[in-house]
Amino acid sequence: MHKKMLVTVAAVALSTTLFAQTKPEDTEVWEPVPAVVTPGKINTDAPSDAIVLFDGKTLDQWVSVKDPSQPAAWKVSGGILTVDKNTGNIQTKRSFTNYQLHIEWRVPKNITGTGQGRGNSGLFLASTGPGDDGYELQVLDNYNNKTYVNGQAGSIYKQTAPLVNANKKPGEWQTYDVIWTAPKFNSDGSVQSPARVTVLFNGVLVQNNVALQGPTKYIGKASYEKPHGACPIKLQAHGDKSEPLSFRNIWIREL
Amino acid sequence: MHKKMLVTVAAVALSTTLFAQTKPEDTEVWEPVPAVVTPGKINTDAPSDAIVLFDGKTLDQWVSVKDPSQPAAWKVSGGILTVDKNTGNIQTKRSFTNYQLHIEWRVPKNITGTGQGRGNSGLFLASTGPGDDGYELQVLDNYNNKTYVNGQAGSIYKQTAPLVNANKKPGEWQTYDVIWTAPKFNSDGSVQSPARVTVLFNGVLVQNNVALQGPTKYIGKASYEKPHGACPIKLQAHGDKSEPLSFRNIWIREL
Amino acid sequence: MHKKMLVTVAAVALSTTLFAQTKPEDTEVWEPVPAVVTPGKINTDAPSDAIVLFDGKTLDQWVSVKDPSQPAAWKVSGGILTVDKNTGNIQTKRSFTNYQLHIEWRVPKNITGTGQGRGNSGLFLASTGPGDDGYELQVLDNYNNKTYVNGQAGSIYKQTAPLVNANKKPGEWQTYDVIWTAPKFNSDGSVQSPARVTVLFNGVLVQNNVALQGPTKYIGKASYEKPHGACPIKLQAHGDKSEPLSFRNIWIREL
Amino acid sequence: MHKKMLVTVAAVALSTTLFAQTKPEDTEVWEPVPAVVTPGKINTDAPSDAIVLFDGKTLDQWVSVKDPSQPAAWKVSGGILTVDKNTGNIQTKRSFTNYQLHIEWRVPKNITGTGQGRGNSGLFLASTGPGDDGYELQVLDNYNNKTYVNGQAGSIYKQTAPLVNANKKPGEWQTYDVIWTAPKFNSDGSVQSPARVTVLFNGVLVQNNVALQGPTKYIGKASYEKPHGACPIKLQAHGDKSEPLSFRNIWIREL
Repeated sequence: MHKKMLVTVAAVALSTTLFAQTKPEDTEVWEPVPAVVTPGKINTDAPSDAIVLFDGKTLDQWVSVKDPSQPAAWKVSGGILTVDKNTGNIQTKRSFTNYQLHIEWRVPKNITGTGQGRGNSGLFLASTGPGDDGYELQVLDNYNNKTYVNGQAGSIYKQTAPLVNANKKPGEWQTYDVIWTAPKFNSDGSVQSPARVTVLFNGVLVQNNVALQGPTKYIGKASYEKPHGACPIKLQAHGDKSEPLSFRNIWIREL
Repeated sequence: MHKKMLVTVAAVALSTTLFAQTKPEDTEVWEPVPAVVTPGKINTDAPSDAIVLFDGKTLDQWVSVKDPSQPAAWKVSGGILTVDKNTGNIQTKRSFTNYQLHIEWRVPKNITGTGQGRGNSGLFLASTGPGDDGYELQVLDNYNNKTYVNGQAGSIYKQTAPLVNANKKPGEWQTYDVIWTAPKFNSDGSVQSPARVTVLFNGVLVQNNVALQGPTKYIGKASYEKPHGACPIKLQAHGDKSEPLSFRNIWIREL
Repeated sequence: MHKKMLVTVAAVALSTTLFAQTKPEDTEVWEPVPAVVTPGKINTDAPSDAIVLFDGKTLDQWVSVKDPSQPAAWKVSGGILTVDKNTGNIQTKRSFTNYQLHIEWRVPKNITGTGQGRGNSGLFLASTGPGDDGYELQVLDNYNNKTYVNGQAGSIYKQTAPLVNANKKPGEWQTYDVIWTAPKFNSDGSVQSPARVTVLFNGVLVQNNVALQGPTKYIGKASYEKPHGACPIKLQAHGDKSEPLSFRNIWIREL
Repeated sequence: MHKKMLVTVAAVALSTTLFAQTKPEDTEVWEPVPAVVTPGKINTDAPSDAIVLFDGKTLDQWVSVKDPSQPAAWKVSGGILTVDKNTGNIQTKRSFTNYQLHIEWRVPKNITGTGQGRGNSGLFLASTGPGDDGYELQVLDNYNNKTYVNGQAGSIYKQTAPLVNANKKPGEWQTYDVIWTAPKFNSDGSVQSPARVTVLFNGVLVQNNVALQGPTKYIGKASYEKPHGACPIKLQAHGDKSEPLSFRNIWIREL
């Protein structure tokens, strides 16, 4: 582009670029109109467009991981869902791609054990197979309980440590608010864009739009073994010797 | 790379790759240890590492935008901060780069007016200059009040509409939770990476890690006019004829 | 996730993770099979899948920008296309989205003038409107000719300076090899992902996957004024007083 | 933000935004001034700022991978470097982070074998360890020779297939032009941003700014096992039974 006479420039500007968007109305957009959603009375309550995954009464939205044709057999009582290690992991009937998720969990007040053996469970943000396959947001009591930092509560297990340790005391209810973006794959199976996750732990940011390197592995580094589409969300039944932990108020909004 | 005899491969695998990370401990990371943060009693309460920008008592953290040497002169009463259009916009004393922010706002129950003239204010996520310069997260009553979608509550004004309309009724307190990533600039002033923003409106995701095209403009499209570093956060004094709106419980965590 | 007995781990590893991908064949992908393309004899020659935009003989692939129903009227002689400032800008008949482009240009050996007035033209990578609208890769003689750095050859005009100054002398043929990724827009007109460009100037990298802030502006900062889809490619007729510059060997591959 | 009277708007626009950037000069940037680089006479020749890794005469820039204290022992003759499978892989003395690389290779005209056993070698864009560790751009004769698509020439081995098959016939010299962006890692060892690569094969784009999932693995999926900084570039000695292939004209520009 070249330097013209300023007088020409001014004329051009006035006649095209400038006048093309002189009016404030020129940058108003009127549609599509965002859908109306009634938010919860408090922010932890489910908004009107959420799918309620656990409302304190039934496990209708969940099945057994071992045998998805069977109902989830964890204990529901007093509005609370408690892990049953004998019946194993449970997962949602539905599969999800991108979403906003809210879940609350509580470690028993009288929890014992140390390291990974103290209130251990896990929230698999996308269950890519049976057992412990998937992207695991760690659930653990790390209030004054030390473990490896990429294995503490708020971590994506064995992959990314949380920004801070925002654990509450055992016996108190804690919250995870998750924004999940599923990975995309090319036709040859290679990764087009990785999974991304943002996590608020008790209202405190612990994962900030982190790109994941693949589903969680217990041994070895995470990698994308194979392409996947929408997946169930899974809760882990662990083998602590002490009392099991509990969940409540689980809801999800598809994005 | 070439295809070796499987027997060799197995041997190599067993002796190097496999054994190199056979043990679960190989992928444990023990430091740096995330700082301990005590979360709020409820998620809207300030965590222990937050800078409280408004605690209901004083405007010590704020100054006038017209004259930053002067204190902010909006009215504080009953734990609430109320806009004073006569004294103009106010901004934080401190400047911020990347952060998590919580703020609550309320439109008067007896609000009148329509479109943009109904409970209008704005939260400038980074104030890049005097007046209305900066990246504006719109504040407006859009409960049954139609306007252009990129100008309704939850929008980045004149730039990105919210994903949904999650307004509460006038008279109810509403929340914005914001994750802000500042833009970066190259040495020639060009944009290295744009600003990014995530917003939860009353707990509902309305902006999902959106890349911004520059500070807000009232006329014309947003663009990055010039590089900037850390910036104050600014609240807008608007000119509605009806009663002004209020703010409370403002805190921020630097990331 | 929890720490199991190592013996169990080993068993699990051997029975699932390990054996699941023990064999090299497990990570071979056999389709889709990439199309066969016969490359040029030398790298500047058009590959077999290219659309030849100018082969030295005709301007069949081009039209006048002033009146796209009219043929491009620049002069073709001796395998070379020479700018005709009287007939104005020319553009391709076809529109393109993502592509790889090769073009060669030459400033007259006896060029005179200074700054922007010395061999000025421009390659609009996507022409978003009449006149000089679009994303302009600057064409100019900057061999020992100083100008603003975001206006020199290899720059995206008024937006990003080239990484280095790789100009050849006037009278020598020079090459641009461009990889262009078009911007994407959301349904509300906001930017989903910006345009990206990589440019090799005489084989030297001058733009490295740079995200653009919008089509070029002569006055003001670039911004995305409105969404656009596939666009023609445009060559600029400038108003230097000295002899005009020339182009040859233009080809494009759609990606 | 609110809707003001248009007359006010016009006044504001004229007095601030508009006049602030009315002049074309307002968006000119004059420094930093890009360094002057003399490009090669033809695009495959080394530009003046390149480090010449192989000029046809000596292997001074290379060492043995088995024992980096020893010189590289491949054969240099007639301006050409020929693989010697007996002495194993060779790598550069220097380490590199981000760069533009040019290399030429030739499969013997009388090559025999099929699949991966036909002119197999590899260019490790960053050698992360001894042996075949690193990010491997596959070298192979795939002119009428079928193999798995993520193992053919132009692929990042076992990771991303090339966009097209741009092989020349055995006996002809072929080129790779590579733009490499090294991965970045967080302090806990997690991936901040993955490696990215663009490859032109005989002037044809085959990898377009692809994000890599980690260094190449022969067994299992690629993953980032551990953080690394600058790395040598490595050439692979493979074990074909037929005549070995050759390299020439290798240069690199640090970015």
